[in-house]
Amino acid sequence: ANALFSSLGTTIFETMSRLAQQHGAVNLGQGFPEDLEPAAVIAAAAAAVQAGPHQYPSMMGTPALRQAVAAANRRFYGLDVDWQTEVMVTSGATEALADCLFGLIEPGDEVVLIEPLYDSYLPIVKRAGGIPKLVRLSPPHWDLPRAALAAAFSDRTKLILLNSPMNPCAKVFDEDELAFVAGLLEKHDAYAVCDEVYEHLTFDDRRHVPLMTLPGMRERCVRIGSAGKTFSVTSWKVGYVTAPAHLMQAIAKTHQFITFTTPTALQTAVAAGLGFGDDYFDGLAADMQARRDRLAEGLRSVGFDVLAAPGTYFITTDVRPLGWTGGDADFCLRLTTEAGVAAVPVSAFYAGDAPSHYVRFCFAKNDAALDEAVSRMRRFF
Amino acid sequence: ANALFSSLGTTIFETMSRLAQQHGAVNLGQGFPEDLEPAAVIAAAAAAVQAGPHQYPSMMGTPALRQAVAAANRRFYGLDVDWQTEVMVTSGATEALADCLFGLIEPGDEVVLIEPLYDSYLPIVKRAGGIPKLVRLSPPHWDLPRAALAAAFSDRTKLILLNSPMNPCAKVFDEDELAFVAGLLEKHDAYAVCDEVYEHLTFDDRRHVPLMTLPGMRERCVRIGSAGKTFSVTSWKVGYVTAPAHLMQAIAKTHQFITFTTPTALQTAVAAGLGFGDDYFDGLAADMQARRDRLAEGLRSVGFDVLAAPGTYFITTDVRPLGWTGGDADFCLRLTTEAGVAAVPVSAFYAGDAPSHYVRFCFAKNDAALDEAVSRMRRFF
Ligand SMILES: CSCCC(=O)C(=O)O
Ligand SMILES: CSCCC(=O)C(=O)O
Repeated sequence: ANALFSSLGTTIFETMSRLAQQHGAVNLGQGFPEDLEPAAVIAAAAAAVQAGPHQYPSMMGTPALRQAVAAANRRFYGLDVDWQTEVMVTSGATEALADCLFGLIEPGDEVVLIEPLYDSYLPIVKRAGGIPKLVRLSPPHWDLPRAALAAAFSDRTKLILLNSPMNPCAKVFDEDELAFVAGLLEKHDAYAVCDEVYEHLTFDDRRHVPLMTLPGMRERCVRIGSAGKTFSVTSWKVGYVTAPAHLMQAIAKTHQFITFTTPTALQTAVAAGLGFGDDYFDGLAADMQARRDRLAEGLRSVGFDVLAAPGTYFITTDVRPLGWTGGDADFCLRLTTEAGVAAVPVSAFYAGDAPSHYVRFCFAKNDAALDEAVSRMRRFF
Repeated sequence: ANALFSSLGTTIFETMSRLAQQHGAVNLGQGFPEDLEPAAVIAAAAAAVQAGPHQYPSMMGTPALRQAVAAANRRFYGLDVDWQTEVMVTSGATEALADCLFGLIEPGDEVVLIEPLYDSYLPIVKRAGGIPKLVRLSPPHWDLPRAALAAAFSDRTKLILLNSPMNPCAKVFDEDELAFVAGLLEKHDAYAVCDEVYEHLTFDDRRHVPLMTLPGMRERCVRIGSAGKTFSVTSWKVGYVTAPAHLMQAIAKTHQFITFTTPTALQTAVAAGLGFGDDYFDGLAADMQARRDRLAEGLRSVGFDVLAAPGTYFITTDVRPLGWTGGDADFCLRLTTEAGVAAVPVSAFYAGDAPSHYVRFCFAKNDAALDEAVSRMRRFF
């Protein structure tokens, strides 16, 4: 078996979800939402499944969904995108990432990555033959280390993998930081693969700014979005890629051999969802912000130090104020099995030598779950 | 962009389907069925979409579908399979292939492939770092060239990619041929990735025999199945892998970073389908056999030489009796644009130096489509 893959463990999210189930824990580990699926999107999917068709759609995705993604690019970000050559539907954002990395990286290319990072990034970059160049944000503010980032770029840099809003640390890159990244891309003639699955989940009037919207970046950026995150249907596995045609070609050819296409009925329903009015998108963010605030307050009342979370599903906490010194993995293990609340150790988002006192909680759950989790922790600590 | 992928064209199936649509041609090119979706499977999917849940199932697939795949292994082939460690659900058989190849191949490993071959095989083997060793079946009987196959194996062989029933040539490997392959695997301590998506589509009382059922092969084979082919829902993109646990580990880790999981509702419906009685599976094969016979007779009446098709969706024809000498690609282009019938050139299934007088027709269509195609061709020739 391939040594790179066989040396890996099961993803931390699945591991914690299984453990949560075994121990009847409230699952604030894996990032998925509760009680937010829009009824109209569900009904549209059920109707489309009943009605068919059930045979291969175009490998690029159904015209309706590609047009809807192009329209969303214009509506939310003023981006002018050709739905036929610049938009592709994938079987989830995870596949989109694999398509982009296998499609764009030549063996030996350098790839800049920012820690803490989502756990599929490094294995896929390496399996595609890329040489990872890691740069690390500094907690608790997760500031971009500009000198280190500049030093990570070279003539051999093919691309940066940029996740904003960022999992796990909830950072939302601001325009000044993005402009700095853009400068490096121009200087080194490099690309950016932008994982923007939490694009509609920013809070406190922070707006998500795609790197692609910055001057000169239209031709250098690939944007990945997720219906799972935008319509709270993580099992549907519908993602979408927006890219200039010259980059889309290689990405689409990878997609054609990795999954080829994505279930038609789910695409139809997601296209309907992307046509929702602003009240839907604003309402989702407002609802999620309220959940964040509810959990943050609860965690503070238990004694956690709660870091800022301007975006995503996630709150990062510092567990040192609780007097814990045993490492974040053991903390999460005990929290799940003894307190009955699952969370994820932030060290799982580092390639090595990670800080060991940060723990991530997912707040995308219903009030009852959040309250129960807090009251279990209050009892435990 | 990655040179390997950017040098590739769009898959021949999509290309011909687009051309067929533009020219109002009857599409006997891309392999997808018509009017065969079982109503109970469709209804089960629609109900499961309506009812939810809509969040990530286990990355290995839902327990119900993994149990159903394990049960099908026993029922159809007498294989005793542990659903928890030996079965995984994928987003289609194409993803299953990518998972197996990226998961099992180490860069530098040799991989034996048999031409004519499905068009995702070679790009993925190469992108995974494998060194392809091609062996070619001889038309019109597509006999296995045993000496050449033996010569293609070496100490560096990691695996053979074996497709039976075989696309495009409709060959169904017999037990004697499989035993020869098994001997080579044991001799060279190699594995087989068995693409068996047409397992339930064999005709004239031919039975599909998985290589995995041969003595000594249980631990050396990975079997890939397809709900798209078995339940005539090619857009659903639900596939499944059966593999011994020691191979499944690396395959599952690849899957976790390539798509992670597959829509729950579609898995639920496919699990229901796998529980159908023999009448369903026998009826599907009988129906498809009748379609094959209908198209074969029509093609013969037009003047094609029709090769035997004991399995799959496909008939291969020799176009020389029609007096055509211009190559199979041009034949298909003219057939689509001038006669109004789309077909696929068999040369697209070769890495190079291909025979140029074979054309593949998909017979999985309804009678009206098959009859219309034949009458258009009769008029044209
Ligand atoms: C693919 S499972 C992980 C879900 C997620 O994005 C997370 O928990 O970080
Ligand atoms: C993935 S599109 C191709 C469908 C098919 O299996 C074929 O036409 O050979």
